[in-house]
Amino acid sequence: MDVTAVEITPRPEPRILDVVGIGNALVDVIATAEESLVERLGLPKSAMTLVDLERATSIYEAMGPALEISGGSAANTIAGIASLGGGAGFAGKVADDEFGEVFRHDFTSLDVELDLAIVAPSDGGTGRCHVFVTPDAQRTMATHLGVANSLVPGDLTGELFSRTRLTYLEGYLYDLPPAKQAIREAVEATHGADGLVALSLSDSFCVERHRRDFLELVTNDIDVVFANEAEACALFKTQGLSRALDAFDELGVLAAVTLGPRGVAVVTPAGTVEVPACEVETVVDANGAGDLFAAGFLYALARGGDPIEAARLGSVCAAEVIVHLGARPMTDLAELAMAEGLL
Amino acid sequence: MDVTAVEITPRPEPRILDVVGIGNALVDVIATAEESLVERLGLPKSAMTLVDLERATSIYEAMGPALEISGGSAANTIAGIASLGGGAGFAGKVADDEFGEVFRHDFTSLDVELDLAIVAPSDGGTGRCHVFVTPDAQRTMATHLGVANSLVPGDLTGELFSRTRLTYLEGYLYDLPPAKQAIREAVEATHGADGLVALSLSDSFCVERHRRDFLELVTNDIDVVFANEAEACALFKTQGLSRALDAFDELGVLAAVTLGPRGVAVVTPAGTVEVPACEVETVVDANGAGDLFAAGFLYALARGGDPIEAARLGSVCAAEVIVHLGARPMTDLAELAMAEGLL
Repeated sequence: MDVTAVEITPRPEPRILDVVGIGNALVDVIATAEESLVERLGLPKSAMTLVDLERATSIYEAMGPALEISGGSAANTIAGIASLGGGAGFAGKVADDEFGEVFRHDFTSLDVELDLAIVAPSDGGTGRCHVFVTPDAQRTMATHLGVANSLVPGDLTGELFSRTRLTYLEGYLYDLPPAKQAIREAVEATHGADGLVALSLSDSFCVERHRRDFLELVTNDIDVVFANEAEACALFKTQGLSRALDAFDELGVLAAVTLGPRGVAVVTPAGTVEVPACEVETVVDANGAGDLFAAGFLYALARGGDPIEAARLGSVCAAEVIVHLGARPMTDLAELAMAEGLL
Repeated sequence: MDVTAVEITPRPEPRILDVVGIGNALVDVIATAEESLVERLGLPKSAMTLVDLERATSIYEAMGPALEISGGSAANTIAGIASLGGGAGFAGKVADDEFGEVFRHDFTSLDVELDLAIVAPSDGGTGRCHVFVTPDAQRTMATHLGVANSLVPGDLTGELFSRTRLTYLEGYLYDLPPAKQAIREAVEATHGADGLVALSLSDSFCVERHRRDFLELVTNDIDVVFANEAEACALFKTQGLSRALDAFDELGVLAAVTLGPRGVAVVTPAGTVEVPACEVETVVDANGAGDLFAAGFLYALARGGDPIEAARLGSVCAAEVIVHLGARPMTDLAELAMAEGLL
């Protein structure tokens, strides 16, 4: 054998992704509602409540005509990364049912790489989030996790985490005890490949449920934190925003604390800076504002932007998603960002 | 036994409905799309094409991220009747799957009385309509009927048709040969109870497929016809709108021929009148414009309005549905109509 004639096909270089998310794979079921209905159903306003299948069924029965669209907090962020033109990946768990197929389709059509466990429908099938949009544009959510409730590390190949610049975790995952191990493995794989790890605190009630875990995670493992004012205050058991910002500063973590129409406070090694929100004419549905802010912020970071540029891009993305129903972008975010001179 | 002491509970009077629809029970899967995609998929622009499960699957794979919302032409009209505050009913067929449950839920939450056959999923389950919304706000549809394809009279109790002021048929039903008998029975039951029967011609290609059947139906059984310009011309094999209007006049049928932004031509026993369209700022998605025009028109007729008042209310309802994605009303049509002084 003439070894000089052997052709060696080079292995294709693995594609490097900008952001990989891990979170609850949900389909949102969205309806407008009067305040009185949200009250009557006993759902804490503007928060996310976990409900079992029985309660989810009665909540759905009480809901008006709805529209269905792929959702899930980290999943919305990843849809934003893809819409910005970034390399995106998502890890989660759905059932082999129609909502699971909708979820898979919407990501595949955005060219998002998936590490998706697809299992037989049980316990209500693919997770769904009932979203009540009240006249003040606030959203109140009742989530039935379905099969997402049983996410364990063995469900995922974990392959995406070793080739991403950033991994993004949603705090909601802490409501699933076995998911902690999946998070641990994702964090290790990401850091092992010199990537950064970002965490969204998700919801102030969720922070209260898992305060100690979150503090430990933020102190030891997290490079970027997203929170709104209530979540930041809940994490540090403090009343004032400025105290929470100081606490992030002391931990030395890059933190973006969103303040709704007042914009965002970004805690950086060089100090804390406030970046104003983009003005919009009418807020239709605040659902997804935080998720899409995180998308713009993370994409800019992944592409070498500084935290202030990141916050500006985050604000542009958040502004797109609050002027329509649904927490997924409905216009091309890359075009929008270019029009604003941010890409 | 002292017969004077026997209490006879009076039978409740059956509720009289304003409009009962019979049609394909579908869930719309809606995405924005460039013209080039619609062309590449070989779908006739602005029309409805029936596709089998295999083609539906490949069309869905080619589609961008979508939102799902209850649809179906006559079903959209019935949702409009309910939103106007009318007594509404719907007869159709869905599968026992998640989309079937979405369809059922959305009508139940609107207080629409249902004569709904719910059968085991087969042949793709509950029918779905893939809607591509191009930048010109036109919609191009590829429908997989699923279980709706096998609607037979035995699927329905037919009970609703004997207590409605108006029954509304969608022309699309003629694509299902066994549905003809269901239509026949619905027409007889409605007329037997002194109700009127209305028909939408649905789609010009559909009219071409069933021209003879439609002409016979309109000549013998139909009291009110809805068509757009292309459908009216296809029915009478004529080129000009005025000839089609004359042909409706000769048949002595009340006809509303919608002309898009130019309004509607109403053929009445007292002559033909044009009613202008309501102005809207930006048309987002023309899907549902005809269906909701029919809703306003039929509701006004059912409540004793004349055809011109009916056309005005139809225009208000059509204007609501074209400024957002999806063919179901997203605001309270009764409130809207009252604001316009029409209710």
